[in-house]
Amino acid sequence: MSDRPRYRIGFVGLGLIGGSLALALKKAGFASSVTAWDLDPSVLEQAVNLGVIDTAAPSMEAVMQTVEIAVLACPTQACEPLILKMLKAPGNAICITDVASVKGELYRAVADSGLESAALYVPGHPIAGSERSGVAAANAALFENHRVIVTPDSTTDPRALGLVQQLWSAAGASLQCMDVLEHDQVLAATSHLPHVLAYALVDALAQSPIRDDIFRFAAGGFRDFTRIASSDPVMWRDIALANRDALLAAMDDFCVRLDALRSSIADRDGAALERTFRSAKTVRDEFARDLALRDSGT
Amino acid sequence: MSDRPRYRIGFVGLGLIGGSLALALKKAGFASSVTAWDLDPSVLEQAVNLGVIDTAAPSMEAVMQTVEIAVLACPTQACEPLILKMLKAPGNAICITDVASVKGELYRAVADSGLESAALYVPGHPIAGSERSGVAAANAALFENHRVIVTPDSTTDPRALGLVQQLWSAAGASLQCMDVLEHDQVLAATSHLPHVLAYALVDALAQSPIRDDIFRFAAGGFRDFTRIASSDPVMWRDIALANRDALLAAMDDFCVRLDALRSSIADRDGAALERTFRSAKTVRDEFARDLALRDSGT
Repeated sequence: MSDRPRYRIGFVGLGLIGGSLALALKKAGFASSVTAWDLDPSVLEQAVNLGVIDTAAPSMEAVMQTVEIAVLACPTQACEPLILKMLKAPGNAICITDVASVKGELYRAVADSGLESAALYVPGHPIAGSERSGVAAANAALFENHRVIVTPDSTTDPRALGLVQQLWSAAGASLQCMDVLEHDQVLAATSHLPHVLAYALVDALAQSPIRDDIFRFAAGGFRDFTRIASSDPVMWRDIALANRDALLAAMDDFCVRLDALRSSIADRDGAALERTFRSAKTVRDEFARDLALRDSGT
Repeated sequence: MSDRPRYRIGFVGLGLIGGSLALALKKAGFASSVTAWDLDPSVLEQAVNLGVIDTAAPSMEAVMQTVEIAVLACPTQACEPLILKMLKAPGNAICITDVASVKGELYRAVADSGLESAALYVPGHPIAGSERSGVAAANAALFENHRVIVTPDSTTDPRALGLVQQLWSAAGASLQCMDVLEHDQVLAATSHLPHVLAYALVDALAQSPIRDDIFRFAAGGFRDFTRIASSDPVMWRDIALANRDALLAAMDDFCVRLDALRSSIADRDGAALERTFRSAKTVRDEFARDLALRDSGT
């Protein structure tokens, strides 16, 4: 560990994800120092008291002036204006990355900016989270055995990309490159659409005339299925809007398949129903097996 | 325990639910003997070897001739013809009940039969299950702190109803009466609709041109959300068809709410999105709290 270079790391915005990454990088000896700025000064005070960061910075510009690696880890809606300001701020950063769940808008804003520093930006997205939020929930092990998707392109500085790879590796995660549009489609399908379905289901049942009995008799399967409807409404509003096009396409694809199932049920077509259920089960069983292998770190 | 009456119990059809109930009733000292008949003789042999039942019966009629309490615990599709045969079979049963997930069709078939023994039939549905199935997965604790819905009516024999109450109480479960139509609506909303949504989602993603990356990058939230898509396709085909009308109505209610969310996203109406997400989160958080209290047995 002592021979490996250590870096001055700075966070712009600090919540569960930024705080967890800060802890992981300190623990791994990847950070020589960790600073952060957040819109809410009480978050920074809390982060210093918890030992998540070493120092609180008075501004985003102050972060950029002192760090080698800058990580944007703010709420989705604030990402686009902030990343442009970070790229324009004076300083000696050799790598700028982020952790936003939606990458397309951010990527295009940077690509269209014409800034020279745009080459230092490596769009990143750790596929990890928790129903908890905020820096107080920060957990150094949050990313262990998880994947991080990055969406560089031919203009990305190779050293910046290499640093992002080392950074996430130090946090226990593995990096995968993906086309930026495909990233947003994959996340729409596997995360944003399920959240919308869970919210819509709970919303529909809450409107029912037999709502009280519905929630009185719902059991563990329903709890698992609707867990993601307990997620932060503001965060998910922003994600749904930021990934609007891919999410609408995923919702439409889903509705085509749901309509097909509806017809099979209405027509009492047991053979078609069983065929769909069986093929979905096969695919889902295979996915669950693969995920169990991944989770065990093999 | 020694002063309480014990009953000769018989199962018609034996899988996870019947086997678990048999074990629980033996353990609680509620059963003086347990017999069963199943279409598949190897199931009975296995059940005797595992100590789930005392004796294997050669036929449904043989069960009915020897028991005081008969429990129909076969797959959904076979319930209707079997319950009518059970009600007609010679014997001295004082109570006939079942464990089917859908009650309307079965209830009407019995009500329309004109049989005198129809009064002995108490439609029942334990709200418990497992992704595992079959008698080898039988578990005496499966029903502990769970609820059982029964749907008796004014023609139901009070002694039969009382026995069903004692039977489930011995298995650790609590009984709740409900109107038969409402039962099917509640189950459509909380169980059958979520299963159809999970199957439809996995089916939609499996058709995607980026299917490989979708399943490669899906994580724990997606695993929880789609767990029920790993359920038995034949069982769920039969449940969907048996509860066709209530399920179609629940699907249509859901699609109205999903369409409203789609419009909010398409129109970039963040306020409407946040309102729906927030109210769904409130309802779901409250439900999860109530369920945690229930699960702890308080």
